[in-house]
Amino acid sequence: MSTFIQRLATSCRARESLLCVGLDPDQALMAIPDILDFNKGIVDATKDLVCAYKPNLAFYEAHGSRGIVALEETVSYIRSVAPSAILLADGKRGDIGSTSAHYARALFDVWEFDATTVNGYAGSDAVEPFLAYEDKGVFVWCRSSNAGAGEFQDVNVTTDRAGRRLFELVAERASAWNRRSNVALVVGATYPDELATVRAICPDMPILVPGVGAQEGRLRASVVAGMDALGRNLIVSASRSVLYASRDPANFQQAARGAAEDLRRRINGVLEEEGRGW
Amino acid sequence: MSTFIQRLATSCRARESLLCVGLDPDQALMAIPDILDFNKGIVDATKDLVCAYKPNLAFYEAHGSRGIVALEETVSYIRSVAPSAILLADGKRGDIGSTSAHYARALFDVWEFDATTVNGYAGSDAVEPFLAYEDKGVFVWCRSSNAGAGEFQDVNVTTDRAGRRLFELVAERASAWNRRSNVALVVGATYPDELATVRAICPDMPILVPGVGAQEGRLRASVVAGMDALGRNLIVSASRSVLYASRDPANFQQAARGAAEDLRRRINGVLEEEGRGW
Repeated sequence: MSTFIQRLATSCRARESLLCVGLDPDQALMAIPDILDFNKGIVDATKDLVCAYKPNLAFYEAHGSRGIVALEETVSYIRSVAPSAILLADGKRGDIGSTSAHYARALFDVWEFDATTVNGYAGSDAVEPFLAYEDKGVFVWCRSSNAGAGEFQDVNVTTDRAGRRLFELVAERASAWNRRSNVALVVGATYPDELATVRAICPDMPILVPGVGAQEGRLRASVVAGMDALGRNLIVSASRSVLYASRDPANFQQAARGAAEDLRRRINGVLEEEGRGW
Repeated sequence: MSTFIQRLATSCRARESLLCVGLDPDQALMAIPDILDFNKGIVDATKDLVCAYKPNLAFYEAHGSRGIVALEETVSYIRSVAPSAILLADGKRGDIGSTSAHYARALFDVWEFDATTVNGYAGSDAVEPFLAYEDKGVFVWCRSSNAGAGEFQDVNVTTDRAGRRLFELVAERASAWNRRSNVALVVGATYPDELATVRAICPDMPILVPGVGAQEGRLRASVVAGMDALGRNLIVSASRSVLYASRDPANFQQAARGAAEDLRRRINGVLEEEGRGW
C-alpha cells in the first residue's frame, strides 16, 4: 500500500496541480438546491484540474443526517469519477484519545477519507488515534486563516526556550508526531509570514493552505512561502471562489471550471518563476 | 424565553442533581446492539437522577449517517420523556467563523441541543457564531481530562503579563466572551488543582467536569474545586462508568441506574458537607 505522501504526490503530478477545491455546499449560495447534484456538477467541471477535494463537514452537518448522507454519496461519486484524487475531510476534530479513536474510525473506516484535518489542543495522546492510521494523512491545524487567529496561536510561549509562539510549538510537536510520515499541517494563506515560519520548522511536510479565494489570502506569497525545496508538498485550497463563481444553474459549472483553471494556472506560474515547474 | 443558565439551574434543582450522563454508545461495550434502544434504556433508567444528557458526537459519527439518525432519534426521545433535561452536544467543534456558523446551525437549529462544547483555538471570531445563539450554552474546552492535556494547555504564555498558562488565558478570554451570559467551560475532573484555578478566574460560570468515572478523576476534590460559591453551576459528567456498569442485556438498566444513583448521592454528600446542600 502506498503512503499518503506518495498518493498526494501522484495526484498532484497527474494533473500538474497543487489546487484543492473545498466542497462547502451552502444552501444560500448554491446555483442548484440539491447538495449531491451540486457537488457532482463541481466535481465534473474540475476533476482534471485539482489534486484534492476537501469537503468541510460543517456544511453537511448543517443539514442533519440528510446532509451526512449527501456527504457519503459525494465521497462515493468522487471515488468513481476521479479515483486518484485525494479526499481530505475538513472537520478539525480532536478530543481525548478514547473519543478521537471514534472520530478516526468515522473519517477513515466509515467514510474512507484519505486524510483529515485535526485540532491538537489536547496534545499527543489525543492525536495518536488519527496517526495510528499510517496510510492516512493527518493535517494538524496550526495557524488558522481568520482575523482572530493570533488571539491564542500567536501568544508567546515559554517552555524549554523563549521567543516562540504557540503555533510554532504546534508545528514543532507535529514534527515530533511524524514518526510514520503521515503528519501534515494547515496554515492559512492570509498569513504568508507565519506560513514561511512553519515551512522552516517542517521543511518536508505537506501543508494545506486555505484562504486564497474569498478570504483574499495572497496567492503568490503563499506559494513561495509554503512550497518545499522542490516546489511541492503544498496544497492550495479554495472553496467559495470556485463553488460560487456563478450562481446561475445554466453556467455554474463553466464558471467553477474557469475559476479553478485560473487558480491552477496562477499557482503553476509562481512555481515556474521559482524554477520549480512541473 | 429563559436563559440557558436559568434552564440549567431549574433542571438541577428539579432532580437535586449535578450529574450528567454522557451518551457515548460504543458497539464494543453496549449490552444491546442497537444505539437507539440502548440510549432509551439508559435514559429510562436515569431520567429522574440527572440534570443533563451529553451525547458525544464521535460515537454517532463512527456509524456514519445511520449513527446520525440514531443521534437525532435519541434527542427526540429525551425531549419526549425528560423535557426539562439539558441536552448538551459534545463535539468540541470550532473553525473559522464562516464554518463555525454552520456547526452552530447543525447543533442548535437542526439538532436543537440546549448547549454544546466548542474548541476556541481559532479565537473570538471563530467562537462568536455559537455565542450568537444567546439562549444556548457554549462550553469552551479549557483544560482537557487526558494525560497529554498539559502539552499545550499548560505552556506558560506571556502576553500582557507573565506567569500564566494557556488554559488560564482561555478561561480569561471565555470570561470576556460572556457578554450574553451564555458561556461555560469544560475542565477535566482528573485535574482538581487546575479546576480550582479556573473557578477562581470565572467565579459564576457553569463548568462541565468530565472524567469522574472510567477516567478516575477524584469526585470529592472536583466538586469542591468546581462548584461556585453557592455550590451550583457545576455539571459532573460520567459516561462509561454508568453506560457499561453491566454489559448484560437483562440488567444493564438497573446497573446504570445504580451507578448514577451512587454518583448523585456522592456529589450531594459533598455539597452537604460543604454546607451547600439542596
